[in-house]
Amino acid sequence: VGLDPRLHLLPKKILTTAQQQLGSTQAAAGLAILEFNKQVLDAIAQHTAVVKLQSAFFEQYGPAGVTAFWETIKYAKSLDLPVIADIKRGDIGSTATAYAHAYLGGVDLFGKTQTTDIDAITVNPFLGADSLEPFFSTAKKQQKGIFVLVKTSNPGSGDIQDLKSNQQTISDHVADMLDDHQDQVDEHGYSNIGAVIGATYPETAQHFRKKLPQAIFLVPGIGAQGGDPSMIKHFFNKDGLGAIVSSSRGVVFSYQENEKQFKKVISEAARDTKILINGNL
Amino acid sequence: VGLDPRLHLLPKKILTTAQQQLGSTQAAAGLAILEFNKQVLDAIAQHTAVVKLQSAFFEQYGPAGVTAFWETIKYAKSLDLPVIADIKRGDIGSTATAYAHAYLGGVDLFGKTQTTDIDAITVNPFLGADSLEPFFSTAKKQQKGIFVLVKTSNPGSGDIQDLKSNQQTISDHVADMLDDHQDQVDEHGYSNIGAVIGATYPETAQHFRKKLPQAIFLVPGIGAQGGDPSMIKHFFNKDGLGAIVSSSRGVVFSYQENEKQFKKVISEAARDTKILINGNL
Repeated sequence: VGLDPRLHLLPKKILTTAQQQLGSTQAAAGLAILEFNKQVLDAIAQHTAVVKLQSAFFEQYGPAGVTAFWETIKYAKSLDLPVIADIKRGDIGSTATAYAHAYLGGVDLFGKTQTTDIDAITVNPFLGADSLEPFFSTAKKQQKGIFVLVKTSNPGSGDIQDLKSNQQTISDHVADMLDDHQDQVDEHGYSNIGAVIGATYPETAQHFRKKLPQAIFLVPGIGAQGGDPSMIKHFFNKDGLGAIVSSSRGVVFSYQENEKQFKKVISEAARDTKILINGNL
Repeated sequence: VGLDPRLHLLPKKILTTAQQQLGSTQAAAGLAILEFNKQVLDAIAQHTAVVKLQSAFFEQYGPAGVTAFWETIKYAKSLDLPVIADIKRGDIGSTATAYAHAYLGGVDLFGKTQTTDIDAITVNPFLGADSLEPFFSTAKKQQKGIFVLVKTSNPGSGDIQDLKSNQQTISDHVADMLDDHQDQVDEHGYSNIGAVIGATYPETAQHFRKKLPQAIFLVPGIGAQGGDPSMIKHFFNKDGLGAIVSSSRGVVFSYQENEKQFKKVISEAARDTKILINGNL
């Protein structure tokens, strides 16, 4: 389940309480989002394998939003839910190291090394292999995961990613960068370096499933973005493993017609999404 | 001048004061960084056209680091320095909108619209034209600027960006996406949609200078990254305008041998960098 908190869609009671307490401020927005996320996490926990936080929707509210981001993650971990931070960072070596340390752990704080509660992050490969290396090495050291953008779920993803060079698409070239890091696998045969493959491109999934059998695919785009659930099997290996399918708005904002019972509606939406995915494997 | 605060390189006096006050915490790190940045900004203001903040080095310290980021920007604006936030964000439409609003302005806060002190941001084009559109439209509405990554300064930038498709490099394809937004120009003939072109690739700069005459180039990579100052003229138009050359570590951490006089050393490094750039136009 993806947590992409949109302030104007939150239950009015949560909004009003925060606003009465702290005014129309970033602090009130952060408080409302954190309160909402905690209730969502309580509602979905029993039906959910992993939660994914979309950083942008927290960064919108400045330091208070970032506090809500880290506190939401802490709460998810208290419910034993693994956490993916969807940050899509990418930068030159020394800066990529700073991002890797910030989100996976390793920041030097007056001689102490900080760890984090995040299990995996998404990264953008546009700057090349040396920009991915600090993420890979930090993930290895911290025993965490990386999902590299290979083929994204948006309509325009092909503008760059589908261009062909030397008989291969740019997405293929990115997949080749991951291929060098697929040799170390866990007891199920999976590497800690995975790929983002949008649910909206199932034919591409079949291609990459063959190319990167050891990679776990993070698959956003079912629900609001229109990915077809009946095609979801193409993202998995024959063992029924190898993909994490994410729905955000379709679960978390499913209660707009029935705000009073929002926790119940969200819980049922998470359950129904789970059944839908499992029924299509 | 680029502000990439690295905690372990800060003057010991600033570090110790913050640590004594707040312990070995993120809050102390944020305080030390903000104090350092203010002194740096005082030292460089008279020699500096624009400051660029690298978000990663602030995000490392959680909400306290993000507070230091926004407070540093506020202080820079109080000195009349334009501010570029080097955030390299890129995401699908609705998320890109959230990032654009977060950094350029437009966040809805309980019915109030927030603005920001940032003048321009950097963005990553890997997700395609529809992922750039929210940044372009928000920048237009807020009268601010965007720098799209076209050719980055790192050694591995060619892995993706130099690949050729239909006789053009991927960087060329990205430049084509900007080209559609070069029609509206200011009184000097420049658009608000610019490009990041690394100082380490002057031959590429000549090519893109011809291709995008109305685009302002953000040129990182002189100083610590090894970009050759004598080649810097290739990033400018014949009118002597059209580029912002950025040095980070080479200015801000120039005082390591003379920590007691760090403000003086930084001020001289900013002045010398300015003279070096202007002398090579």
